[in-house]
Amino acid sequence: MKIALAQINVTIGDFDGTAAKIKSYVQQARNGGAQLVVFPELSITGYPPRDFLEFDDFVERAGTVLEQLKPLSRDIGILVGLPTPNPQPEGKNLHNTAVLLYGGREIHRQHKTLLPTYDIFDEYRYFEPAVSWNVVEFEGHRLAVTICEDLWNLGNENPLYTVNPMAKLMAQRPDMIINLSASPFDYRHARERIRVLRANVRAYDLPIVYVNYAGAQTDLIFDGGSLVIDKEGNIRKELPFFEEKLDFFDTENFTRPGQDRERPKEKIPLIHDALVTGIRDYFGKIGFRSAVLGLSGGLDSAVTAVLAAEALGPENITALLMPSEFSSESSVTDALALVRNLGIRAESLPISPVFDATMEMLRPYLGQGFDVTEENIQPRIRMIYLMAFSNRFGHVLLNTSNKSELSVGYGTLYGDLAGGLSVLGDVYKTEVYALARHINREREVIPQNILSKPPSAELRPGQKDTDTLPPYEILDPVLHLYIEERQSPSDIIRQGYDAALVRRILRMVNRNEFKRYQLAPVLRVSPKAFGMGRRMPIVAKYLE
Amino acid sequence: MKIALAQINVTIGDFDGTAAKIKSYVQQARNGGAQLVVFPELSITGYPPRDFLEFDDFVERAGTVLEQLKPLSRDIGILVGLPTPNPQPEGKNLHNTAVLLYGGREIHRQHKTLLPTYDIFDEYRYFEPAVSWNVVEFEGHRLAVTICEDLWNLGNENPLYTVNPMAKLMAQRPDMIINLSASPFDYRHARERIRVLRANVRAYDLPIVYVNYAGAQTDLIFDGGSLVIDKEGNIRKELPFFEEKLDFFDTENFTRPGQDRERPKEKIPLIHDALVTGIRDYFGKIGFRSAVLGLSGGLDSAVTAVLAAEALGPENITALLMPSEFSSESSVTDALALVRNLGIRAESLPISPVFDATMEMLRPYLGQGFDVTEENIQPRIRMIYLMAFSNRFGHVLLNTSNKSELSVGYGTLYGDLAGGLSVLGDVYKTEVYALARHINREREVIPQNILSKPPSAELRPGQKDTDTLPPYEILDPVLHLYIEERQSPSDIIRQGYDAALVRRILRMVNRNEFKRYQLAPVLRVSPKAFGMGRRMPIVAKYLE
Repeated sequence: MKIALAQINVTIGDFDGTAAKIKSYVQQARNGGAQLVVFPELSITGYPPRDFLEFDDFVERAGTVLEQLKPLSRDIGILVGLPTPNPQPEGKNLHNTAVLLYGGREIHRQHKTLLPTYDIFDEYRYFEPAVSWNVVEFEGHRLAVTICEDLWNLGNENPLYTVNPMAKLMAQRPDMIINLSASPFDYRHARERIRVLRANVRAYDLPIVYVNYAGAQTDLIFDGGSLVIDKEGNIRKELPFFEEKLDFFDTENFTRPGQDRERPKEKIPLIHDALVTGIRDYFGKIGFRSAVLGLSGGLDSAVTAVLAAEALGPENITALLMPSEFSSESSVTDALALVRNLGIRAESLPISPVFDATMEMLRPYLGQGFDVTEENIQPRIRMIYLMAFSNRFGHVLLNTSNKSELSVGYGTLYGDLAGGLSVLGDVYKTEVYALARHINREREVIPQNILSKPPSAELRPGQKDTDTLPPYEILDPVLHLYIEERQSPSDIIRQGYDAALVRRILRMVNRNEFKRYQLAPVLRVSPKAFGMGRRMPIVAKYLE
Repeated sequence: MKIALAQINVTIGDFDGTAAKIKSYVQQARNGGAQLVVFPELSITGYPPRDFLEFDDFVERAGTVLEQLKPLSRDIGILVGLPTPNPQPEGKNLHNTAVLLYGGREIHRQHKTLLPTYDIFDEYRYFEPAVSWNVVEFEGHRLAVTICEDLWNLGNENPLYTVNPMAKLMAQRPDMIINLSASPFDYRHARERIRVLRANVRAYDLPIVYVNYAGAQTDLIFDGGSLVIDKEGNIRKELPFFEEKLDFFDTENFTRPGQDRERPKEKIPLIHDALVTGIRDYFGKIGFRSAVLGLSGGLDSAVTAVLAAEALGPENITALLMPSEFSSESSVTDALALVRNLGIRAESLPISPVFDATMEMLRPYLGQGFDVTEENIQPRIRMIYLMAFSNRFGHVLLNTSNKSELSVGYGTLYGDLAGGLSVLGDVYKTEVYALARHINREREVIPQNILSKPPSAELRPGQKDTDTLPPYEILDPVLHLYIEERQSPSDIIRQGYDAALVRRILRMVNRNEFKRYQLAPVLRVSPKAFGMGRRMPIVAKYLE
């Protein structure tokens, strides 16, 4: 049996566009001689549809698309995913369902059993789990159709579920596992996925065909990497990362010994490609073409500009240089060198005249001091400039804050924390350096001076990040242990970090939840990003 | 048996403070002659602890508090809630547990079965449901201990669960239901709660003792209203709304016929009290005392100022009047009249000098037009003034946007949408009018002219809200049908609203998700508030 793996990139709720795309891929699959074409989880709605699932109208429109697909299945099996109403009066109103169409009608449906409800996932918010499991016979094969998480209760040290749908399906002697997935990228995920799928191959002695999404949905980036794994655990096919792609695999090949053809998976290049995908799809899917950002001469805005230029084209990037009296001369020259290297547009707008006018109005009320008040006014004036360009020219403002500063609240609300999309909000400062070195691997795109000078917000004379924060080489690992690993202060201290410093860092993290709450969506590249996947109380007293 | 109902107000994760409070209430209960004192759900951590539950350290500290309480239970039963580790290797790591202490030790524990995972609730994110159920004998009674949602699968037209823990407990012949709750307020909830509890009384022919939290946790406001309901469905006791309170009920009274003593529940007064509670606890629990807000002379900022003055004291409220050349004279005089009526502080800072300086810098790049760009610069300058006062004096900026304008995106990001807490973000404009009339019921606090003039953002000459938006009398009901009732466009149109207008309104709602994503926490008073309870994709094409 020749199977087409349709690793598509869709827009959530774009029923007409998605239906057209699925139809076109069915046609291509048929033209390529496939007997079966497999799409990702909830392929008709896109993933994650979130609370659109609470609208009956939304679910009905997905059902209408399924009806439209039936006539196309006369001579090819079409395996798609969609939300379907739960006919039982008790339990959640929907199932997360895979449907196999063939011969112009539905020949099989299987609901999802394991409903991920952690991190960015909310599936039990909407779906009732399956309570029955059936293998389907198709073209001489016995297919165990599973949906994403259904295979993920295996090979884990922390199994989250008390049932295992594959174990149930094994009673009906399947000869192949098909998995429709919606598995968002993080820098560990592509490896993790293969580990878990191989654990299934080993446990059930079956080959797996796994189809994932490509492309970004706001903050979530789907990396594709769809897979065919044989019974020996060899990767017979791994589709490209981050790209929409149709590819074919003939199950006849399982009868011949095969080689493992795994693609390389390096953390920093993957993060780079993920972020470019995230920017490109955020703009493309909401119909914006151009971005504006502030270029400070520092590292974060430089890396953001490079990624944006790659995603949208340099002609669609406008950079504003907005020096103040505290900006060093190299800030401007470094930023201008980057502008030349990238070929993006740039304008220079000093903030002093507006800063002075603002202070003249405020002085009678605030007095003569210079503290965080005056520091914060500067990035807020920059925001006004940037948003004026956004409003007038339809550019989206890109936020350039990194994960280290967001973690400890080192940023100004409605100032440098502004923006429609946070590009580096899930990338620690030490990782931003690594990204910059990766960008510069063949030629100096980011001027070397930007990489070598000490980081500074330049909001008061001679300011350095290290005036307020520990060095990033210490800060970042402590943040990682707390945020990604959820370790306690005592666990972290036990690893050799200074106790007072650890407590100070965790206190900063917890006290600045209110700032992150108002942040733009953050492109997620780590196992624990700020946003929907990390839900913390704002008013609380834990570790404060 | 004399039961003490401890309707407490705690800060999430404040283990020391909460332990001290629980101990003090146990002492008061003992002094009042109680044999049993009942606290709310997860009383040791506060509710909702959200992802703090993923930290082993957090769960262990809750266990430590439980140990501290044991010695206090020598002569009184203490029923408290906390997260406890799930000893099984499979399933979620925690249970949501009620523990009964007596005689210095734990004599009973019951895990929660029904884990709400909808709207603002995420319980299946953390907890494994109970799979065993036991009645506990205590002081001659057989108690069925349940936790909040455990009683909510009854009396609903849409049961969300396939099990019913009370039905399981009935096999052991309980004579009373105890319910530890964490049930956040909305304007329908206090009635709904009684309806559901009475459905349980009818179904099981048992009296119920129900203990809820009082006070706010960031966006969620717990209204108290703890209840004792007899087997006939009479409300024998209903604790006050929104107030921490210990009260007593002797189960001997169940043997005598009783009268129904339900408190009045009127929507607008309840919303008023909820919002005052929400402001008071947000400030009190994070240790801030004072607020700043912009007073435009319009209705929303006036109502916000009144609520804030009531919550924090007029001496702790600073209002900034920030007129522009487009402000009408009455804007200033109306605002000043309100300032006098309330006795709050006020300063007047015109924005023109900063606006002019900004435009002078931007003109070479933007050209000569006047559009949304120039409109948006004005509220952003006001934000800079307001945040300068916030930074210098430690005031929290209150956001004054109402739910109608937030729904359709009628507001400026980083301008009037700024603020640490959204007071009216869950109150439609027509409800804000009703709140104002309620505030003015005895004397004119809010000047009549503020209520009678047509709403305007005053960002260009002669602007009115109705230039851009439908009248609020039409807009609000359409928004309600879409947001709270999740009706489809065709459902709404069928109720007599103009089809093109409905589509335009829903498109505005869906296209402005990106603005609401960056909004402060919104005090929740309706069944569907913006924030954690409403999770929508930003990049999507549904109803656009």
